[in-house]
Amino acid sequence: MQQSRYNFVSTLTRSEDLLPNISIDCVILGFYQRQLKVLLLKYNGSNLHSLPGGFIRKNEDLEEAALRVLEERTGLSDIYLEQFATFGGKNRQFASTQRIIFENNGYSVSENHFLLNRFVSVGYYALIDFSKANPSPDELSESCNWYDLNMLPTMAFDHSDIVKKALNSLRSTLDFKLIGFNLLPETFTMNELQALYETILDEKMVRSNFQRKMLNLGILERIEKKMTGAPNKAPYLYRLIKK
Amino acid sequence: MQQSRYNFVSTLTRSEDLLPNISIDCVILGFYQRQLKVLLLKYNGSNLHSLPGGFIRKNEDLEEAALRVLEERTGLSDIYLEQFATFGGKNRQFASTQRIIFENNGYSVSENHFLLNRFVSVGYYALIDFSKANPSPDELSESCNWYDLNMLPTMAFDHSDIVKKALNSLRSTLDFKLIGFNLLPETFTMNELQALYETILDEKMVRSNFQRKMLNLGILERIEKKMTGAPNKAPYLYRLIKK
Repeated sequence: MQQSRYNFVSTLTRSEDLLPNISIDCVILGFYQRQLKVLLLKYNGSNLHSLPGGFIRKNEDLEEAALRVLEERTGLSDIYLEQFATFGGKNRQFASTQRIIFENNGYSVSENHFLLNRFVSVGYYALIDFSKANPSPDELSESCNWYDLNMLPTMAFDHSDIVKKALNSLRSTLDFKLIGFNLLPETFTMNELQALYETILDEKMVRSNFQRKMLNLGILERIEKKMTGAPNKAPYLYRLIKK
Repeated sequence: MQQSRYNFVSTLTRSEDLLPNISIDCVILGFYQRQLKVLLLKYNGSNLHSLPGGFIRKNEDLEEAALRVLEERTGLSDIYLEQFATFGGKNRQFASTQRIIFENNGYSVSENHFLLNRFVSVGYYALIDFSKANPSPDELSESCNWYDLNMLPTMAFDHSDIVKKALNSLRSTLDFKLIGFNLLPETFTMNELQALYETILDEKMVRSNFQRKMLNLGILERIEKKMTGAPNKAPYLYRLIKK
């Protein structure tokens, strides 16, 4: 713990290696028990939660920075990632909240600290297989957990707006891009697939229509059931055809 | 001319009023003679063209900065604007090209000039009524003109990639958002509307299907023809129903 705290502090004081005034925030979404979940950090000694985020090193692409943050928080390195919006309001300066968070962690902050400035933040959403993630908190946080999108806890900064915007963006591109499959394990039933679409789009669908539409896309492969001799009542499993 | 050059130089040397390392680039699109056109600047004494762009003042929202640039280049203040992507590659540092552009304009540039750094650029596309724009060049440019998207001239920096990305983004949201109407004058024929959709999506549509689909959306109002006594063969005009 002491070691990682040291790393954190050294990162923040070596701000000359980072692009000033620019950050990233990651809305990491998973699907579990027919709910869309989002991964949030809870600050040490506080009721405030935040999206995993970070800064951009001068020798690092924006997307590399996002992938680095995602790997640090989930342990996953091959993640579906989409940049959805950049937040650039002139009021995105959260000096007083940042100061409280630091003081709760036993750090004092100088007046002209890097973190107290205005930040333009680039939002990414990531769609991951819930069962594979291994959430781990950062140095300022006591936990890193999944939360229902319908029941977000108290959020720091403008992070609840960022979550809303990510969800709207995901909804508007879902049919078009078929990216929802990133939220499912490799094989799934038609029922599970429909539940995912219904949850994200927040609308009920007719089962026969949904199945026909999905099969007509020509992207699903039905996996043959194992013959056991007994009548097999388990539903068919599908997987995405590899291109 | 001397006055505006002075203003330009003073803006660039007063970089302490600007967010460092962040810029905006605007893909301004118009529709004319069944072609989508993009507004580009041509640098003085050079064959290089660029998108209108600029920097963000510390007391200005990102979107305010984009609207300011749009107004400076087109004379229009009430423009449909959409943020479509943020470009953050670590190679977005164009020192040698910037230096040539400055020297062509008779300025010398210090080694640590603001403009020679890496920039993360936020892309906006704007959809405007071609007939209302009044393009005007900036201090480093000899012209500000419309160009066919299919025949772009030599582009500086990574600006041709930014144009491509804007077009892809527009295509993917066109049906969904009905934003294409921003490219048309207040009243238009069904034929003009179809030509616009066909041009942006780059596909031919069946006239009867297109008309039915558009009318079913319930967003178009047909304007009654004036009765002149003579048989009236002019096509119907439509306009968007104001919400």
